[in-house]
Amino acid sequence: MTAATRDIPILAISMGDPAGIGPELCLRALCDPEVLACCRPAVFAHAATLGRVAAACGLPQPDSVTEPAEWATRPRAPCVVDCPCPEADTVVPGAPQAAGGRAAFACVKAAVAAIQSGQAAALVTAPASKEALHLAGLPYPGHTELLAELTGARDVRMLFHCNELVVCLATIHVPYVTVPALLSREGVGCTIRMAADAAQRLGRSRPRIIVCGLNPHAGEAGLFGREELDIVLPAVEEARRAGLQIEGPIPADTAFLPERMRHTDIYVVMYHDQGLIPFKMLAFDRGVNVTLGLPIVRTSPDHGTAFDIAWKGVANPGSLREAVRLAARLVRCPETHP
Amino acid sequence: MTAATRDIPILAISMGDPAGIGPELCLRALCDPEVLACCRPAVFAHAATLGRVAAACGLPQPDSVTEPAEWATRPRAPCVVDCPCPEADTVVPGAPQAAGGRAAFACVKAAVAAIQSGQAAALVTAPASKEALHLAGLPYPGHTELLAELTGARDVRMLFHCNELVVCLATIHVPYVTVPALLSREGVGCTIRMAADAAQRLGRSRPRIIVCGLNPHAGEAGLFGREELDIVLPAVEEARRAGLQIEGPIPADTAFLPERMRHTDIYVVMYHDQGLIPFKMLAFDRGVNVTLGLPIVRTSPDHGTAFDIAWKGVANPGSLREAVRLAARLVRCPETHP
Repeated sequence: MTAATRDIPILAISMGDPAGIGPELCLRALCDPEVLACCRPAVFAHAATLGRVAAACGLPQPDSVTEPAEWATRPRAPCVVDCPCPEADTVVPGAPQAAGGRAAFACVKAAVAAIQSGQAAALVTAPASKEALHLAGLPYPGHTELLAELTGARDVRMLFHCNELVVCLATIHVPYVTVPALLSREGVGCTIRMAADAAQRLGRSRPRIIVCGLNPHAGEAGLFGREELDIVLPAVEEARRAGLQIEGPIPADTAFLPERMRHTDIYVVMYHDQGLIPFKMLAFDRGVNVTLGLPIVRTSPDHGTAFDIAWKGVANPGSLREAVRLAARLVRCPETHP
Repeated sequence: MTAATRDIPILAISMGDPAGIGPELCLRALCDPEVLACCRPAVFAHAATLGRVAAACGLPQPDSVTEPAEWATRPRAPCVVDCPCPEADTVVPGAPQAAGGRAAFACVKAAVAAIQSGQAAALVTAPASKEALHLAGLPYPGHTELLAELTGARDVRMLFHCNELVVCLATIHVPYVTVPALLSREGVGCTIRMAADAAQRLGRSRPRIIVCGLNPHAGEAGLFGREELDIVLPAVEEARRAGLQIEGPIPADTAFLPERMRHTDIYVVMYHDQGLIPFKMLAFDRGVNVTLGLPIVRTSPDHGTAFDIAWKGVANPGSLREAVRLAARLVRCPETHP
């Protein structure tokens, strides 16, 4: 290692679902100059699958492959760390399969272990399929919940990042109707603190925060629901007393006007679609998902497995590249709040 | 009336809350060439308030004022129809007051009566204040509910229109948590039919319709809620059997991607913010609200009373102008469903 590379972190990139576009994105990351400029990528994947996908997509075969045990003693990157999963040889592209779910899980598990033992600095996950995980008997609605369990994290939050908009979600993959019961002053307060901390790590020393209400018109002073008065407002006031620059509860339908977005560093929203509708309108295909509250830094592209274009050589690597860049930025500024 | 003006409809414009920007918008409409090109405006207002606002804003005093009874026997336009409301003289600009709520109500009631008796073709409402209506003992969350009651309509829906996006809401001003219980196959089916009809009246002979799911990822095949399977999908399938060109349930967070919007004529959404977040991001200050299901055509600007800039002469008439234009278009194509 030369002085020039000493500050460039090793990032573990897990393959995601082998039947989706994850393997192609990993192959592209290994030789993407923009990826290599900000990190040294170690791709945790089923190497034989990468080989099949490289052949199918007309991409170069990866030239550096090793086993997890060997890599653990001598981490190097760019490199493919071959995660054992014999079943993966049976995977066919384009559909969720139990074998795909198991392979995705094996890769992310090995990548997490590498970070926990200090061999890699952060995790970037290519997309997994909830349905394939389900078929494999792994009952996680997504990577976020899976990583919370793998790392023993109690309170995790999803954050979505693009240049125009950063949103942090108080609740995630749950039925619409269960959201109100999952909201509490403590939970919203914790989301606000995690969001503020993330914004600071991303370079905003005094972030301007907006917290959305739950109900239409933020409840209109209690006329259409009391969650704003009973939960959101007290959490916002407590955060303000703690020194944060924060506004809310703001009606969600006027929170994301272009002029307001320009003057807001981070949004805290109450439920999945409240944040993801505006986010995907702005940044589909280049958004990045960050998990807050884990003991490790983890980012991922905002899109899914894209089974319909798997193994075809046409996947857009933009969002994975942004995920790698953001992980590298976050590694340089470690988390300070819970 | 000359042949040239015979096809230009008389539209009734109600003043809205006198303490907001409604009176100024009405004054501007009376002499706006774009308004006068598509309709003959009859402004239902408290004439003395219009006079005070004209003086405050440096706008010309309206030159044609009459009483409802006289106007009823000889409708003319442009004209101000002076709606009696003695209390309105006490109104001060910039805040909701009981007197303001009562004046707004008196004006809209007189305008509706004029339409019901055939003297005007459609209603355009300047913004009212829910809080002022409440202070006046009129318990309507907004014009939509008020007009439903005034006209005896049973099933009304809110539609929002701008050039890029048209959305129709299955539920409106209700607490977040009550939405699932308000959704039914019949109700969503009725919303779809009303939306399809509105799109046809707006010139799409075979509109392309998208229906959003309720839950994140549209429930992901039942993993995060069953409303898609039990309510939305059956309603969509029935509409398709009836010949509509319709897709859904689509996850709300990917429904409004720019590319998809370009190929969609109208969206049916399950709740207020699901439609209003994307709509206001695109069209704040020039959106139009349409009430479907009334026996009369009614549109309004998408913004509120803007108490902070009331009587200052700086209100933007763009959205009211669009509301007038859309009302004139809808008058030419009468409602066919439900």
